[in-house]
Amino acid sequence: MPRYRLTIEYHGGGFVGWQRQASGLGVQQVIEEALHAMLGRRGDCPEIFAAGRTDAGVHARGQVVHVDLDADFAPERLLTGMNFHLRQHSVSVLRIERAADDFNARMDATARHYLYRILDRHPPPGLEAGLVWHVPVALDAAKMHDAAQRLLGHHDFTSFRASECQAKSPMRTLAHIAVRRMGPEIHVTAQARSFLHHQVRIMVGTLKLVGEGKWTTDAVAQALAACDRRAAGPTAPPEGLCLTAVDYF
Amino acid sequence: MPRYRLTIEYHGGGFVGWQRQASGLGVQQVIEEALHAMLGRRGDCPEIFAAGRTDAGVHARGQVVHVDLDADFAPERLLTGMNFHLRQHSVSVLRIERAADDFNARMDATARHYLYRILDRHPPPGLEAGLVWHVPVALDAAKMHDAAQRLLGHHDFTSFRASECQAKSPMRTLAHIAVRRMGPEIHVTAQARSFLHHQVRIMVGTLKLVGEGKWTTDAVAQALAACDRRAAGPTAPPEGLCLTAVDYF
Repeated sequence: MPRYRLTIEYHGGGFVGWQRQASGLGVQQVIEEALHAMLGRRGDCPEIFAAGRTDAGVHARGQVVHVDLDADFAPERLLTGMNFHLRQHSVSVLRIERAADDFNARMDATARHYLYRILDRHPPPGLEAGLVWHVPVALDAAKMHDAAQRLLGHHDFTSFRASECQAKSPMRTLAHIAVRRMGPEIHVTAQARSFLHHQVRIMVGTLKLVGEGKWTTDAVAQALAACDRRAAGPTAPPEGLCLTAVDYF
Repeated sequence: MPRYRLTIEYHGGGFVGWQRQASGLGVQQVIEEALHAMLGRRGDCPEIFAAGRTDAGVHARGQVVHVDLDADFAPERLLTGMNFHLRQHSVSVLRIERAADDFNARMDATARHYLYRILDRHPPPGLEAGLVWHVPVALDAAKMHDAAQRLLGHHDFTSFRASECQAKSPMRTLAHIAVRRMGPEIHVTAQARSFLHHQVRIMVGTLKLVGEGKWTTDAVAQALAACDRRAAGPTAPPEGLCLTAVDYF
């Protein structure tokens, strides 16, 4: 059973999220079915394991998964065949490599990189609807960046964690966070070994309050210290978020 | 009848193009109907006049139109109201200003700016389908840029003109063209007072042949000199093209 490592790009709109669910189509399902089609639908549908189980509407440019296949495919042929079977979906396989038998896309990841795009202007997005969070007022990116630095480091991120988060510990190490003006948009980039459920979206929803002038930089530090979800801001919507890359040793 | 100048952004996918057509929905139509709704559907539907009548599938970040309205609206109120009526469409009004009574969005334009995005990699676009031209081989952007410079200046662009082009003269002045690598994409930017029908798309379709190594830089100059549509390359597809801005004195 050779193990493969796949790097995947997708538009999260139209999916119920990464995971297979009875309520609708998950990204996982369409990729597994493309693999199954490549195997001539012999045997069970292969099961893939992802570095990040993105929520409904969240995008990826560099999701990484591993899978064991019951056949020894040349990676190039597998890539071409999978993309053929995925052509009806907004999912594309960017790279396929043979991996060590014990490679684990989720456990072996040393860093996950996210980008969150905000369009902060009165008119709604005409061209990039579904790829940005539309905030109809101008935000102060510099103030948001300063406030974001208060979240850096090793902390109990309970305030920035969805109530349904299943992680055993709320301790995480935020290695990088930056907020930058990019023309009409504000881009928030964040990097950590791993994130809690909704952590990036709650951080962005909180920093938006700073950008509007409703919260001070100190209020963000206080929200972190409170270790209470109710102390932080609202969860930013999924469509602005993109898993851009996953690092491994 | 006060005259207004509107700056508009739209995703061209799902429209039959700019102009009203019996075969489907034009961008023009949804904007005119939003204006008519703002007027309480009194009188005839207003007619708008655009700087560039984009083809089906072509996008805009800075289309400019003028319109005469049978009511004196505050521009801010008109903008908010129009975007409310446009909310079901991928069309957004970015700015509205009162204009001089003789302002003409088409005739007064001193420059039109276009961006053409190419994704030159084997895997198809997962995230930006409909916004880029997918070319499944790597292109040499530097060679494309060199070849593009042979098109600069005042020329008979008959070779780069759609057979159905209705312009009286094939003479145009290409003021700027550049081809740049932008991460996984190649961006072609072009600027002229005006362009012939399909001119940017035929220039891009021809430069792509240079990027693949099938054509030399000299071959592009020869195609221009031939003054024959059959001498140039194929027309690049609409989805990579975007009207980014229109300049006025």
